[in-house]
Amino acid sequence: MSAGCELCATGPSPAWTEVASDERLRILRVLDAPDFPAFYRVVWRAHVAEFTDLSSAERLHCMEAVAGVEQVLREMLAPIKVNLASLGNVVPHLHWHVIARFADDSHFPQPIWGVRQRDPALPAVERLAQPMRMVDQSVQAMLAGLPARLVRIA
Amino acid sequence: MSAGCELCATGPSPAWTEVASDERLRILRVLDAPDFPAFYRVVWRAHVAEFTDLSSAERLHCMEAVAGVEQVLREMLAPIKVNLASLGNVVPHLHWHVIARFADDSHFPQPIWGVRQRDPALPAVERLAQPMRMVDQSVQAMLAGLPARLVRIA
Repeated sequence: MSAGCELCATGPSPAWTEVASDERLRILRVLDAPDFPAFYRVVWRAHVAEFTDLSSAERLHCMEAVAGVEQVLREMLAPIKVNLASLGNVVPHLHWHVIARFADDSHFPQPIWGVRQRDPALPAVERLAQPMRMVDQSVQAMLAGLPARLVRIA
Repeated sequence: MSAGCELCATGPSPAWTEVASDERLRILRVLDAPDFPAFYRVVWRAHVAEFTDLSSAERLHCMEAVAGVEQVLREMLAPIKVNLASLGNVVPHLHWHVIARFADDSHFPQPIWGVRQRDPALPAVERLAQPMRMVDQSVQAMLAGLPARLVRIA
């Protein structure tokens, strides 16, 4: 734990909701209904900055959780692309962005950190194929099943 | 192979140089001396768009290569942060950006796709602790040693 790190804090936040967790990581959903409603973050519990601060086994666990979120997004929302990123320039606590992108979203094909391309007529959350609480449930089920998948790889 | 895909093409490019490769992936270095000289791309050979188009074993191979590049960058250049991203909105052929970031680079702390923050006095390549050809050699050695590391995980 690092004092003052917003990703070490585990209390409620106006910026995200915690959807699932295990002993090593938490999965948050960013609360951005207007632009990017299908935006999750896989946050490593320990306060480390870089992906290579993890062991190989921890990296495997982390990325299978990231892949699991991506798979849920693809199956339930059929995005045109999923964007994955671990940046941490501002908050140097390892976290992976997993973002469903759509051709008519506010920034496509730019990254969400790039130049805004348009102002969609409807909030993005209203254009999704499923309510996000259903997607959250699938993310929870995915993470609960993750240990079994990791054993299969080994 | 997909006709017209710039990452399926394997010939020389003015935009990058190929540094290393194995049967599943290639590692390119982006030629951006002014702003981001320590910028590699891990490009999956097969023309697939998403990380979850790979099997679990393939994802492990891919991410251990990404981690290996990150580790080389950390050890040789001591960046303030490494940024990792798989976006593919413009070129939907799976590739991972691995970018060494420095506090005085043109965009920090913004992502490289964000708003430029400053114009450094010297080209970024002249501020690096090592010549990039030395870093390239370490990336080559890392990839050559990767199969042994993967066996250790399993």
